[in-house]
Amino acid sequence: MATIRDVSKLAGCSVATVSRVINRKGYVHKNTEEAIKSAMKALNYSPDRIARSLAGKGSLTVGLVIPDILNPFFPQLARAIEDVASDNGYNVILCNTSNDPAKERKCLDVLISKRVDGILLASSTILPEQILELQRSAIPVVLIDHQFPEIPILSIVARNREGGAIAVRHLLEEGCRKIGHIRGPLHVAASLDRCLGYEDECGSEPWFIPSLIAQGDFHSEGGFRAMQELISRHPDIDGVFAGNDQMAIGALHALYKLGIEVPQQVKLIGFDGIASNRTVPQLSTVSQPIYTMGSQAMEYLLRLIAGETLPQQVHEFEVQLVIKETTKAEGRMAVQ
Amino acid sequence: MATIRDVSKLAGCSVATVSRVINRKGYVHKNTEEAIKSAMKALNYSPDRIARSLAGKGSLTVGLVIPDILNPFFPQLARAIEDVASDNGYNVILCNTSNDPAKERKCLDVLISKRVDGILLASSTILPEQILELQRSAIPVVLIDHQFPEIPILSIVARNREGGAIAVRHLLEEGCRKIGHIRGPLHVAASLDRCLGYEDECGSEPWFIPSLIAQGDFHSEGGFRAMQELISRHPDIDGVFAGNDQMAIGALHALYKLGIEVPQQVKLIGFDGIASNRTVPQLSTVSQPIYTMGSQAMEYLLRLIAGETLPQQVHEFEVQLVIKETTKAEGRMAVQ
Repeated sequence: MATIRDVSKLAGCSVATVSRVINRKGYVHKNTEEAIKSAMKALNYSPDRIARSLAGKGSLTVGLVIPDILNPFFPQLARAIEDVASDNGYNVILCNTSNDPAKERKCLDVLISKRVDGILLASSTILPEQILELQRSAIPVVLIDHQFPEIPILSIVARNREGGAIAVRHLLEEGCRKIGHIRGPLHVAASLDRCLGYEDECGSEPWFIPSLIAQGDFHSEGGFRAMQELISRHPDIDGVFAGNDQMAIGALHALYKLGIEVPQQVKLIGFDGIASNRTVPQLSTVSQPIYTMGSQAMEYLLRLIAGETLPQQVHEFEVQLVIKETTKAEGRMAVQ
Repeated sequence: MATIRDVSKLAGCSVATVSRVINRKGYVHKNTEEAIKSAMKALNYSPDRIARSLAGKGSLTVGLVIPDILNPFFPQLARAIEDVASDNGYNVILCNTSNDPAKERKCLDVLISKRVDGILLASSTILPEQILELQRSAIPVVLIDHQFPEIPILSIVARNREGGAIAVRHLLEEGCRKIGHIRGPLHVAASLDRCLGYEDECGSEPWFIPSLIAQGDFHSEGGFRAMQELISRHPDIDGVFAGNDQMAIGALHALYKLGIEVPQQVKLIGFDGIASNRTVPQLSTVSQPIYTMGSQAMEYLLRLIAGETLPQQVHEFEVQLVIKETTKAEGRMAVQ
């Protein structure tokens, strides 16, 4: 497909001039205008993505609805989605919902009225009815980091429960004998699954009691408070699995403030894989393939937009144990 | 202005059904269709943002062109912009350029052909000619984190040079007597300005030599390597100003690996204000008001879109010294 730039090259003028002709805005010399019009014809250039959209050919735009781009999980997801989108001639409209159902509804209404070709939904507040409503409006939707067992919808998630178990097994193998868990928000499926993974491994240990689980909020502040709670309840704790990396960062800071050495006195592991080179000491974690999940979600959405019928199923992605300094002290280098 | 939701409420049906009527897609009962059409009429609802755009009333969409949403400076900027945009009924199309001029050109062409109402440009690779071309195409543009002294364009920047000087003065006040600098990429104006701020304070010190400046890349990996270089060149260094927080994190990690205590042996300060709770010890920094800069940029863009004439000048934002643990050891809390 020819672009506005191709037209400007063939016509021997700037993109801005071509744009003025297309939009009938501003002065363009008669001869230039004619050169542009014949260049458009020669290249079979359809200047108008908007007219394209009105003609029912799609707006070449998709919506990405997320809780908050400030949560470091989402920039990587957004980057992957935008990379695949732009490789395929699509643009991405970004919407933050702040987990506010009213704002989320408004986002979706606006995206529908702008005739986006599809929607990627990474929301923990969306209701099954809303998914069904979107499906009825014939707009393709892919769900990310969330699933509804009760309705058929193409969903992309990581193996959260297995990942929780992997984190805890690593702490046990490193010699931990009393392991706490900082869990994420109660309404988020991923945080429940990770907590179940923790219980799968620890639930039958002789030292296990429920007060080893503290409530966090997926933010570092919540991780900080939950870590203080855990230490005050169980001063002999020697391992902590935080339900995401942000809370692990807060927990790490709380331990530092308390004068507790990591990993010598307490070993700490997170979940996500977004922070390893952003903390000191480097954070051990269970990483999700966030970029792959985002690009795969966008590829499925493109196939749905193209009219393909895909099974409305949950696609689970493997997670990976990443061992860094908060669970295993590495040797320090000598000053040269 | 009435929304599709208002129409669905008045007509007593779902948004999806209204959408089917608007898009003439899928089955809708005759009576329902009539109810929807009269609801639209009663509410004076213009269903079609796309038709609106064709009628020259604007697409209610702006483009945000950035190098990479993975750089932690940009999520905060994007969040601020999207917040102000959505409060005003606008959507934001996100484009990552990866600092690739060809990709950036393609982004801008697509945004123009989609008839966005305005563009926010946070690019370090954009050329003055491109700005002039955009201005000629009558699309309002606001520049963020960048400026061109040679052309008139509304720009939003932080006081980078002053911030560099503030960082170094703080290190001097804390007793540092040999201060190194890890600078950002050579082609980025902000990194040059921060380096000039460092030189303003250190250039005339008796101990100053140019090899106290090491080259980084604004990523933690570059900060790590640059810190190793500085220590091997100057083992007696006792303070380091990193040109951004990402590089400061890399530097902190290099110091940790080398067994050098922070802040006891080397004091370290960054720039941006995005990482303070991510490191142990917490990172001192010079913070930019990133959220305010983003929301102000979007507000200026909205005024330009509304046809207001604003002075094409550089708006500089105050930076702030944030003293944390890497320059000043605070007391630790006792275990309760």
